[in-house]
Amino acid sequence: MKARESTMKFSIQRDVFVQSVQDVAKAISPRTTIQILSGIKIVADQDGITLTGSDSDLSIEAFIPKEKDGDELVSIQEEGSIVLQARFFSDMIKKLPENTVELAVNDQFIAQVTSGGSVFNLNGIDPSEYPRLPDIEEENIFRVPKNLLKSMIRQTAFAVSTVETRPILTGIHWNLEDGLLTCTATDSHRLAMRHAQVTDNENDVTFSNVVIPGKTLNELNKVLEDSDELIDIVVTGSQILFKSEHLLLYSRLLEGNYPATKNMIPTESKTAVKLEVKKLLDAIERALLLSREGKNNVVHVKNVEDGNLEITSVTPEVGKVTEQVSTLSYEGDELRISFNGKNMIDALKVVEATEIVINFTGAMSPFVLKPVDRDHMLHLFSPVRTY
Amino acid sequence: MKARESTMKFSIQRDVFVQSVQDVAKAISPRTTIQILSGIKIVADQDGITLTGSDSDLSIEAFIPKEKDGDELVSIQEEGSIVLQARFFSDMIKKLPENTVELAVNDQFIAQVTSGGSVFNLNGIDPSEYPRLPDIEEENIFRVPKNLLKSMIRQTAFAVSTVETRPILTGIHWNLEDGLLTCTATDSHRLAMRHAQVTDNENDVTFSNVVIPGKTLNELNKVLEDSDELIDIVVTGSQILFKSEHLLLYSRLLEGNYPATKNMIPTESKTAVKLEVKKLLDAIERALLLSREGKNNVVHVKNVEDGNLEITSVTPEVGKVTEQVSTLSYEGDELRISFNGKNMIDALKVVEATEIVINFTGAMSPFVLKPVDRDHMLHLFSPVRTY
Repeated sequence: MKARESTMKFSIQRDVFVQSVQDVAKAISPRTTIQILSGIKIVADQDGITLTGSDSDLSIEAFIPKEKDGDELVSIQEEGSIVLQARFFSDMIKKLPENTVELAVNDQFIAQVTSGGSVFNLNGIDPSEYPRLPDIEEENIFRVPKNLLKSMIRQTAFAVSTVETRPILTGIHWNLEDGLLTCTATDSHRLAMRHAQVTDNENDVTFSNVVIPGKTLNELNKVLEDSDELIDIVVTGSQILFKSEHLLLYSRLLEGNYPATKNMIPTESKTAVKLEVKKLLDAIERALLLSREGKNNVVHVKNVEDGNLEITSVTPEVGKVTEQVSTLSYEGDELRISFNGKNMIDALKVVEATEIVINFTGAMSPFVLKPVDRDHMLHLFSPVRTY
Repeated sequence: MKARESTMKFSIQRDVFVQSVQDVAKAISPRTTIQILSGIKIVADQDGITLTGSDSDLSIEAFIPKEKDGDELVSIQEEGSIVLQARFFSDMIKKLPENTVELAVNDQFIAQVTSGGSVFNLNGIDPSEYPRLPDIEEENIFRVPKNLLKSMIRQTAFAVSTVETRPILTGIHWNLEDGLLTCTATDSHRLAMRHAQVTDNENDVTFSNVVIPGKTLNELNKVLEDSDELIDIVVTGSQILFKSEHLLLYSRLLEGNYPATKNMIPTESKTAVKLEVKKLLDAIERALLLSREGKNNVVHVKNVEDGNLEITSVTPEVGKVTEQVSTLSYEGDELRISFNGKNMIDALKVVEATEIVINFTGAMSPFVLKPVDRDHMLHLFSPVRTY
């Protein structure tokens, strides 16, 4: 008698299994109301084990081959598939007593996970109910090193909007033109922009107005190891696919037109100030210490003698902070401006430089922060009106 | 003109100041509605700086002497006192740029904290409003090493009741008789008892029915360093004082009669099982993995062939766990009992032994867990009725 499709049996190395389960679980929303999407789909076929997690917008697929570098990772006794609750699964596997785990599924969708003296009987779900992943033609691939992609995500994704009033701003705008990939995020009060040359673009892929959900890129950043290996990226009209050796991440793109951010960025400068990142960061962090409850996080900056800056913050019930910050150089007009210090801290934490230059064009105009020596990154801030 | 009482000025080593501020802040309740108790009282006199934090039940006082081992810790320019908001204070001092911090108070109770280029102006409160600490006569002192006291707290305080239905059970019962200090805590479902010989008791201090709030001992455990130095302990009718070199902790005692726990502890045994702590702990932790949401945390234990145990736990929606645990020895009757596994995990984590023995006297009777070789500690558990 032929086994039903859902019946399967394999044994697998615990640590390899844990890693892949944790990777695909990142796509699963703990608050999903669709029962099948609260589970991880596990498929055993002749090549190895494929795991999938999804929240329907974002899907992550991990493949565990039967062998790696001559080491047997998986031994498959019977091919098949099952969907198991993600919630307890990675914790459970992590705590199993032996290095080898056996998973067997009966025709009632009950999975038995065995390791040493431990036996877990888990209620599974019929895998035929699991949604299909998007079908993406892998024609127009471009490639960047994983560690570069991670940097670009880290340096822009923090600036997306977290409110849903303009959903398009919850995503990061990607533009690829002449082999230059430009990533931009803004919540309309601050903007982060980073660009880099694409390493491998043999089909000369070009696109604009591709907006990737912030969540997608944050989860991608978590599952991607920090290496200089290349990752394949494919963009279609409504989807993006990131493809690493044993990991696929599919995401829906956001619909709508992203604002034209280029015109927002001032090109002239009335005051240019060079500063050490650490000094400025520490001073703003101290200035904001008392305003944690004030919520507006406003700091006031003005120039004082010797081209240095004075940063102040007042929280009436608690007190006032005054910080003197020495500058590396100060050129141009007098300065007196107020802005959200928390936004600047966010930028200073990802700037990956020891020295930055800030160009101001007046108390009521947005101003630009860049690393001193390089032009690959830009942070824009709106001032706050305080009178 | 004589300065007003609230005016003072001193400079102090930042790290020493941070440590003492953090210690006394542990007594302060972040939710207090009494404004003066949300602050730290700072007193500068000719000997050094005294800091106090209090929630009116528990008070911690730290003293920073002017000098330690020939190193100047504090330099006092003007004696005085002030009360400053605890909330931001330790964070603020920790982040100051220089190793030296200057604190100056004007006659409007405004404190100016200066370090390098940072100046904080903080609104203070009149220190004359701060409540007095209890006056405790230090006649009947007994002493134990700090690390022993920390162990005794850790091994009992976890078992106190966290619900206020019987307030006396939120405390730990201390009894001192013939130089033997016995600490007992119970939430009426489990009980933890630990005793030890007092190191120094020249006045032959004896007491019973002293009940110390769980919070007091947990905070004491945090501020006490792990050393074999002795700590002084003084008990009065309504207060207890712990006195270390530069740290005083005062606490109100709980009022009411603690239940007579001695009679609860069974003296006979029908089944005695010796087990390795780590094996048992891992097995129960795995057994409870699926029941995290079930909330009752019940595990079922029975003996199987070769004198080993089988631990099972069922969460109908999720599945069933079965754990085989090998024993070191098994003597007596058949075993079939259900209990709260989380309570046993709590005990196994503080037992500080590699092997324990559990004595059962029937499926419906409380049972006793002890380290194999020593008699200084006992954990009692009530079984759960499952039929």
